[in-house]
Amino acid sequence: MKDIIGRAVESGRSVLKDGAVAMYIPELGKADPGALAAAFCGIDGTTAASGDKETKITIQSISKVASLGLAISLLGEKTLFSRVGVEPSADPFNSIMRLEMRAPHRPLNPMINSGAILVLSLLPFGDSNERLEAVLQTMRLLTANPRLRVNEGVAVSERDTSDRNRSLGFFLKSVGSMQGDVENILESYFRQCAIETTVEDLAVMGATLANEGVNPVSKEKVFSKRTSEILRSLMATCGLYDGSGDFAVRVGFPAKSGVGGGITGAIHGRGGVAAVGPALDGRGNSIGGIRALEILSDTLDLRIL
Amino acid sequence: MKDIIGRAVESGRSVLKDGAVAMYIPELGKADPGALAAAFCGIDGTTAASGDKETKITIQSISKVASLGLAISLLGEKTLFSRVGVEPSADPFNSIMRLEMRAPHRPLNPMINSGAILVLSLLPFGDSNERLEAVLQTMRLLTANPRLRVNEGVAVSERDTSDRNRSLGFFLKSVGSMQGDVENILESYFRQCAIETTVEDLAVMGATLANEGVNPVSKEKVFSKRTSEILRSLMATCGLYDGSGDFAVRVGFPAKSGVGGGITGAIHGRGGVAAVGPALDGRGNSIGGIRALEILSDTLDLRIL
Amino acid sequence: MKDIIGRAVESGRSVLKDGAVAMYIPELGKADPGALAAAFCGIDGTTAASGDKETKITIQSISKVASLGLAISLLGEKTLFSRVGVEPSADPFNSIMRLEMRAPHRPLNPMINSGAILVLSLLPFGDSNERLEAVLQTMRLLTANPRLRVNEGVAVSERDTSDRNRSLGFFLKSVGSMQGDVENILESYFRQCAIETTVEDLAVMGATLANEGVNPVSKEKVFSKRTSEILRSLMATCGLYDGSGDFAVRVGFPAKSGVGGGITGAIHGRGGVAAVGPALDGRGNSIGGIRALEILSDTLDLRIL
Amino acid sequence: MKDIIGRAVESGRSVLKDGAVAMYIPELGKADPGALAAAFCGIDGTTAASGDKETKITIQSISKVASLGLAISLLGEKTLFSRVGVEPSADPFNSIMRLEMRAPHRPLNPMINSGAILVLSLLPFGDSNERLEAVLQTMRLLTANPRLRVNEGVAVSERDTSDRNRSLGFFLKSVGSMQGDVENILESYFRQCAIETTVEDLAVMGATLANEGVNPVSKEKVFSKRTSEILRSLMATCGLYDGSGDFAVRVGFPAKSGVGGGITGAIHGRGGVAAVGPALDGRGNSIGGIRALEILSDTLDLRIL
Repeated sequence: MKDIIGRAVESGRSVLKDGAVAMYIPELGKADPGALAAAFCGIDGTTAASGDKETKITIQSISKVASLGLAISLLGEKTLFSRVGVEPSADPFNSIMRLEMRAPHRPLNPMINSGAILVLSLLPFGDSNERLEAVLQTMRLLTANPRLRVNEGVAVSERDTSDRNRSLGFFLKSVGSMQGDVENILESYFRQCAIETTVEDLAVMGATLANEGVNPVSKEKVFSKRTSEILRSLMATCGLYDGSGDFAVRVGFPAKSGVGGGITGAIHGRGGVAAVGPALDGRGNSIGGIRALEILSDTLDLRIL
Repeated sequence: MKDIIGRAVESGRSVLKDGAVAMYIPELGKADPGALAAAFCGIDGTTAASGDKETKITIQSISKVASLGLAISLLGEKTLFSRVGVEPSADPFNSIMRLEMRAPHRPLNPMINSGAILVLSLLPFGDSNERLEAVLQTMRLLTANPRLRVNEGVAVSERDTSDRNRSLGFFLKSVGSMQGDVENILESYFRQCAIETTVEDLAVMGATLANEGVNPVSKEKVFSKRTSEILRSLMATCGLYDGSGDFAVRVGFPAKSGVGGGITGAIHGRGGVAAVGPALDGRGNSIGGIRALEILSDTLDLRIL
Repeated sequence: MKDIIGRAVESGRSVLKDGAVAMYIPELGKADPGALAAAFCGIDGTTAASGDKETKITIQSISKVASLGLAISLLGEKTLFSRVGVEPSADPFNSIMRLEMRAPHRPLNPMINSGAILVLSLLPFGDSNERLEAVLQTMRLLTANPRLRVNEGVAVSERDTSDRNRSLGFFLKSVGSMQGDVENILESYFRQCAIETTVEDLAVMGATLANEGVNPVSKEKVFSKRTSEILRSLMATCGLYDGSGDFAVRVGFPAKSGVGGGITGAIHGRGGVAAVGPALDGRGNSIGGIRALEILSDTLDLRIL
Repeated sequence: MKDIIGRAVESGRSVLKDGAVAMYIPELGKADPGALAAAFCGIDGTTAASGDKETKITIQSISKVASLGLAISLLGEKTLFSRVGVEPSADPFNSIMRLEMRAPHRPLNPMINSGAILVLSLLPFGDSNERLEAVLQTMRLLTANPRLRVNEGVAVSERDTSDRNRSLGFFLKSVGSMQGDVENILESYFRQCAIETTVEDLAVMGATLANEGVNPVSKEKVFSKRTSEILRSLMATCGLYDGSGDFAVRVGFPAKSGVGGGITGAIHGRGGVAAVGPALDGRGNSIGGIRALEILSDTLDLRIL
């Protein structure tokens, strides 16, 4: 298995030159564009990894899966999806125009920034730290890694540069789609995006989603079967922003990406597969990571679509 | 199996009162809103159906799967997707505004009307009849039903009322995204939409796609494995227009709908499942059909997402 | 006066190199990008011109003023503006997306293509020739030039390349904003755009509008005072497409441009001023013409804004 | 003159029942929907008023004329309009979507909220109070009323409810169109909107703009001739938001409205005319005020378009 993963990583390295690390958050700009790693974690809990597997990245948008799962668990599917849609969007992750264009002015899905911010606002925590802790704890359970922590330097960098997210937050509030204190909500958003992980963490996270919410390493139940189904469904249709359709065609399983360079995939009944590679394509997805996962999908017959 | 399908149909009947038959094409308006049927065809070729299984509907947008598969087979994946995108859209099926809003002004995906019209224009047939025959023949192979024919009354009705499709066609031409004679292309589009099928035809079609392109009833190879993968992927992300995300969450497998009231689903390695019910929801999808498929997905454990 | 106009034309010549003739209609592409002329016609009927005043251009969008005035005269202000708006648009002249974006899906104003096509459809003529004759006759009255005729070569060229206008027409019909036979309506649209004029014709036309609808040369009443006010108002806010605001700031009087290179201005109580110069700026307005009119506005104190 | 104005006010009262006071800022909601007044100030400085002329309203968007004039005076026309456009928009005053839709992502014109906020950010004042004082001082000069002051209660109410303006501000910053501290800029924006005026103040302001920038009451020069031209031009094309075209057709002179219920018009060479009436139409313009101005335009022959 390790060899198979190694060959996928090698193939992924060949396209790294066409990508670039995210520059809009200065701390992310310091990442190594040459780093690439991939990992697999079966639903039996066995894990294998290859490449720069010690590379730490911040999870960024991958955290949206954790906060959404938490919100479904706490509020119920029906309540949650009365406030945010489930339709994939062809717009970039930080787009605002559809919020204005169409009544009822709610985010199209929870995987774009506006949707993720709204989901956070629905969590029953008034305090920003408490909210962050709940999401962080969920990530720890998903990864079976109790040592996961926020990279506070990146969090500060996010906060200082995230005027677009502020614009989204205040817009949602202005149209009545969101309640609460925008800066307070964003504070936990910036910090959850800055949770630091490795490729193995992400593979275990994917395996937990693939295993109907039970972490195959720790054996702990993190989410219900139904919550896991919903998360996998949204990952399949909206997980890679406006590159979701391309990923479905090329790679063929549910996955979620982040601009830190991580991608975590969940193959129902098989396990989780992940890649880490900070060099991104034009839509903000790990360019080498997608390639490595494409190879792994073929070699290990992981395609479900 | 027949009983299971029967119970799903009964459940579907309970929501029919919330739907309405498509009225924008007069001939479609004559359909029976109370009709509902469902069917399953395994990849071993065994078929079961229940409900109003003799009901004939025109396939409408389900034909887009056939013409797209044919186009991929004839032109190759790379050429085809240099002309049309693969990203799901949150816009209605007949939307035009994104074609203007964004360079390169090409349709977001082949499952919305603009994309399907463009795909037709790429087929290597100058003659409208020849083009229609090729698509019809593909549909016959997919359904193992050599008697499939065009309902010419519906085709005429489509032609007479399809100013939006004309607008899409001329727009694509005006921005240089499409070549050829718009009316000639639309002529075959209107007719392929009017191909008449039953729920069993659609279940066999789904099973063929689920079986990597080999029709399990006739044993004939219609599409390659790769073409089948692409079709299933696009069905999963874009198959039910702006209701694709909702279908993925609720039902969880690749499917394609049409405003005639048909839905055909393809579950890789398991088989095809279909529903026919002309009463539609607000997005143009069979309201009872979705419900019946949701029940079948649960009962038969068909969910892949 | 002739010298003043001559100096304005010389100033206009200096910017011609930054423009280009319209290429999307092949016949327009044959125009001389170096040609430039300007003219003034007072409300006393005295006319002066300078530059390439023999240059003939097709009026293109300037014809929208004639057909709109005719429509107001025949249908009344209230009826007409229940079908088309009066708001300036920041979109290009051939934009379609707002027609979809906003109910009631009617054109924002009669000076963009969709609005002009709709206005034509409201004229009480079923026959394309009759409709064209009525607009042509209005243009002859406005210019006091009974010899005005359609350049049929350009008309054919328009018809052959006007897929965008077809798209607009069919869209309007599909949303129920327009009735009638689209091709029939477009046929007269293409031909009215191809009416051939000189800069002196256009100056007289402007003077007629400035003189409350009475042609100061022929002394004939073409439009009522109120119709003239409406036309001048719409020219002021929407006359130069998405360059209308810039023209108001720089030049400061109501005007209408066409992609043939003509601009006709109407200064209430003073007279008409016109320019002809086929080299266009990026928004489709005569680049030298705007410059010449800017100079004339300053020198002759024509600014009303 | 007073009688003429009185009759215009009476006519305006007849439509008040179709309007409603602005509710989105709680303090504005307390205004009297039955109040209506109008006034005229000639370029000789003589003033006449009728109706509820003691009614005080906050100027709201009318302040945009003052801050824009100040910005042009301090920065120059060229610099200023390299940062904000001059094209009228068919979008509501608080629209955000075009900022995203179109590069270079700058506000279409300085009369919509995003444009006005950007203009403020360009003023050479780092301190919010200083910036406010400069605009307030400009307003005092325009109105010849040194006692003009901010209604701090309304200012607080604006600040507390202005999430849409925050969204616009942060968006402009996120796309690099605006620099500076968003909350600091908005602080002076909220306060300048809350400057309290009467209908006579607004008539004098209009007369100053009509008189090429020289206040006809105080004889002080507030703006240059060119700045006055620019302001009148933008008022003519963009002064009443997405009701600008309708106002041009119905009333026919440059004007600027505010959601407090004020409208100030500037008729070049004639004088200023104003109305105050807090009951608004659907686009946020004084419903009775527009009617009163329409009557005055007819009676006093104020139309310039």
